Amino acid sequence: MTDNPHPILVDLRAALGTGHVLTGTEAAPYTRDWTGQVHTHPLAVLRPANTSDVSKIMQLAHAHEVPVVPASGRTGLTKGTKADNQLLLSLDRLSTIREIRATGRIAIVEAGVILSQLHEAADRHDLIFPLTFGARGSAMMGGALSTNAGGSNVVRYGSTRGLCLGLEVVLADGRVLDLMSAVHKDNSGYNLRDLMIGAEGTLGIITAAVVRLMPKPRAYASAMLACPSVTAALDVLNTLQAETGGAVEAFEYMPASFIDAHLKRFPNARAPFEKRYDVNIFVELGALSSRDANPTPDGEIPARRHLEEVLANMLDSGALDDAVIAQNEAQRAEMWARREAAAELSRLHDPIVDNDIAVPVDRMEELLARIETRIRALDPGIKMLNVAHLGDGNLHFTAWPSTDDTDTHAAINRAVEEEAVTLGGSFSAEHGVGLSKLPAMARHKDKVALDVMRALKAALDPKNILNPGKVVPAADATQ
Amino acid sequence: MTDNPHPILVDLRAALGTGHVLTGTEAAPYTRDWTGQVHTHPLAVLRPANTSDVSKIMQLAHAHEVPVVPASGRTGLTKGTKADNQLLLSLDRLSTIREIRATGRIAIVEAGVILSQLHEAADRHDLIFPLTFGARGSAMMGGALSTNAGGSNVVRYGSTRGLCLGLEVVLADGRVLDLMSAVHKDNSGYNLRDLMIGAEGTLGIITAAVVRLMPKPRAYASAMLACPSVTAALDVLNTLQAETGGAVEAFEYMPASFIDAHLKRFPNARAPFEKRYDVNIFVELGALSSRDANPTPDGEIPARRHLEEVLANMLDSGALDDAVIAQNEAQRAEMWARREAAAELSRLHDPIVDNDIAVPVDRMEELLARIETRIRALDPGIKMLNVAHLGDGNLHFTAWPSTDDTDTHAAINRAVEEEAVTLGGSFSAEHGVGLSKLPAMARHKDKVALDVMRALKAALDPKNILNPGKVVPAADATQ
Repeated sequence: MTDNPHPILVDLRAALGTGHVLTGTEAAPYTRDWTGQVHTHPLAVLRPANTSDVSKIMQLAHAHEVPVVPASGRTGLTKGTKADNQLLLSLDRLSTIREIRATGRIAIVEAGVILSQLHEAADRHDLIFPLTFGARGSAMMGGALSTNAGGSNVVRYGSTRGLCLGLEVVLADGRVLDLMSAVHKDNSGYNLRDLMIGAEGTLGIITAAVVRLMPKPRAYASAMLACPSVTAALDVLNTLQAETGGAVEAFEYMPASFIDAHLKRFPNARAPFEKRYDVNIFVELGALSSRDANPTPDGEIPARRHLEEVLANMLDSGALDDAVIAQNEAQRAEMWARREAAAELSRLHDPIVDNDIAVPVDRMEELLARIETRIRALDPGIKMLNVAHLGDGNLHFTAWPSTDDTDTHAAINRAVEEEAVTLGGSFSAEHGVGLSKLPAMARHKDKVALDVMRALKAALDPKNILNPGKVVPAADATQ
Repeated sequence: MTDNPHPILVDLRAALGTGHVLTGTEAAPYTRDWTGQVHTHPLAVLRPANTSDVSKIMQLAHAHEVPVVPASGRTGLTKGTKADNQLLLSLDRLSTIREIRATGRIAIVEAGVILSQLHEAADRHDLIFPLTFGARGSAMMGGALSTNAGGSNVVRYGSTRGLCLGLEVVLADGRVLDLMSAVHKDNSGYNLRDLMIGAEGTLGIITAAVVRLMPKPRAYASAMLACPSVTAALDVLNTLQAETGGAVEAFEYMPASFIDAHLKRFPNARAPFEKRYDVNIFVELGALSSRDANPTPDGEIPARRHLEEVLANMLDSGALDDAVIAQNEAQRAEMWARREAAAELSRLHDPIVDNDIAVPVDRMEELLARIETRIRALDPGIKMLNVAHLGDGNLHFTAWPSTDDTDTHAAINRAVEEEAVTLGGSFSAEHGVGLSKLPAMARHKDKVALDVMRALKAALDPKNILNPGKVVPAADATQ
């Protein structure tokens, strides 16, 4: 920061009140993210109270041509809120759940509402807001919407975009775009809502949203499955979807190496099966109906009994090698804990090259084989840890190279992205682009699509003050 | 048409072949739509064979600055393909289903594929492409995507946008935008796909798409319900969704006046109930699982039995006034025929004022009451016919004014739109804007949203040659 404060700060203090324009030590809590990996040095941290304040900020920023970086829970993984010498606009004070309409199955929320708070509020109406992921206790709705966040139950409920009906957005010049619709069918011109969702604050600042709520599953049926192959696992998924009427909430792939790593790290943990299998799947079904969820007189959960029957048929036919159904909540928790250990397991070694990619669901087996071949050629001593949301074709890939050579690391990362793209997939699945995936955008995204994105950005933010330099690489970016 | 052909026609004939640039009587079959209501006089009708041809056309149109109106099945209801003195670009020769991947649950289709052809192709894999509506035998995928078409099973499967994974689009200057992804998670920059879907050919010409296929229901359970009120019917829907795990495929509201009109028009038809009820609902559940669909030893369909139990509970509690379950396919067909008679019933009298609007599902009862009050004040002798996709909050409203005064007709139409908007709804639910709803766009759409749409249009089509004058009203449009 400079010794002479930027002239916009005077105007901002007048507009927001001195206490809501933070600099120096006051701003410190906002200048690093929860991972501790991203430090930033903003001109100031702004804490607007409402949409009108956000509008005032953007009017001033537009007049002064000072860049603004919106942020909410700052739990992102792609450096999307880095704001050096820019204004960091925190939405954390816009934290009101304005309304829950249980019969209409909607919630109206502000951008600073914490995801887990919305979970709790929905639960009080016996409903759920389905979006969930590890950072749910800190992540806020503004960030979830801005990055079109995914998570572990997208296979049933879709990503954030699919859960949003309406949106309120402040534009680069401070105008407020009111798309706060709560209707399921609305063909009234261009779909600006879905353009703003996932744009990571580069086209506008999301201040509020109307989101969908869903009935809460009354019981779960969870199991570990061993499948002959990844492709065979996809057939199992399709059968389960048909046999349960689409009740699959999670379908998570863990290879033998993942199970090995888990047992090594947690010696008291149990292996999922007595035998070691190459393809291990955690599956969970959510039972909505009393018919599926209410215990029978002998204490059985019908959904669990039904799953057992379906799996027994698949074991008979050879579609499955093995299966274990959770008999109680403790066994279910054990299965979730194994899957959720991924974040910790992926950090056990150094150096790390990790990636978040997606392919069409029927291309996952080929993706895994191709990646292994490519990266072993680059580094024969490499180790790796895979875990996939197989129902979405989404692979979280971690490699531990045997070398510290950063060129090799970059080559590994590029190889992984290339193989996903070659198979018709995406180099960026659910974490967004931010700064981290800009080089991949320049390398792999359709060139016409990049040109169109630049044209849209120039049309909506001609002064390039909304989170500039993120998401869309410059036209002259080196690849 | 002028005596001297426009100079672009020479270039177009060289590019496409003479036989694919139609004028005069050759063009006649393309100059009126199936309703017979829209006649148009294009400069020529162009029939490209593939995406490359479409690209060549747009390069020439861009150079000559001649407007192009894309069209496919021409079954739209809002005059979106009117092309007087413009080039009518028919996509009917791009009619290939390029690929169906059953395990991956996707189809890759061109814009000229007829909807019912895709239904048949999916059926051969025991899958469905869920989108369906009356015009399915003529409507083509390009039009369905361009208008984000809805239909009668949106409550389960979503509108066209939700069924599309990837898109190929030719831009105003002929560049080809390749978004042909088949992945379920793809956060790689701005969502251009969903911007193009529903833009009615004003931002680009959709030439191909990757769409989702779904498992085919193995049986249906269908019923007519009589509910104490429209709001009570919504509670019934929510209960049925929970009790069936979201298996509701149709939830269609017909008031007593609809039943009366149906019986009058079809004297041999049966009334749904012995008693006359105000709120009649047609509900259909799709059973995906063998457990729900396979007949029991005594020939019963379990899904039907389950529905019977759930409805019996609701009858006991007073949530329902009456219920009749279809016991066989003939009774199911009778229920569908009653609902699908709506199109014919709405044309029984003249003059007609009709409208397609949507409100949040929990506002439908209030909407119906408000509309009735408003239009009876405008025309005490007015008659009306309502039918609603209640699960989507989508009302198809037909009024038969007692007067031929067109000012009164316009006032009725405006009143209906206003009441939908007042209740947080949309004046344009599932048929699109085209030319017909331009005045409503000017009156009711958020002014900032209109400005943003104009900015996007100018950025992507600076010469205003893609279906100009449709969807987005001019900035100086009178309201």
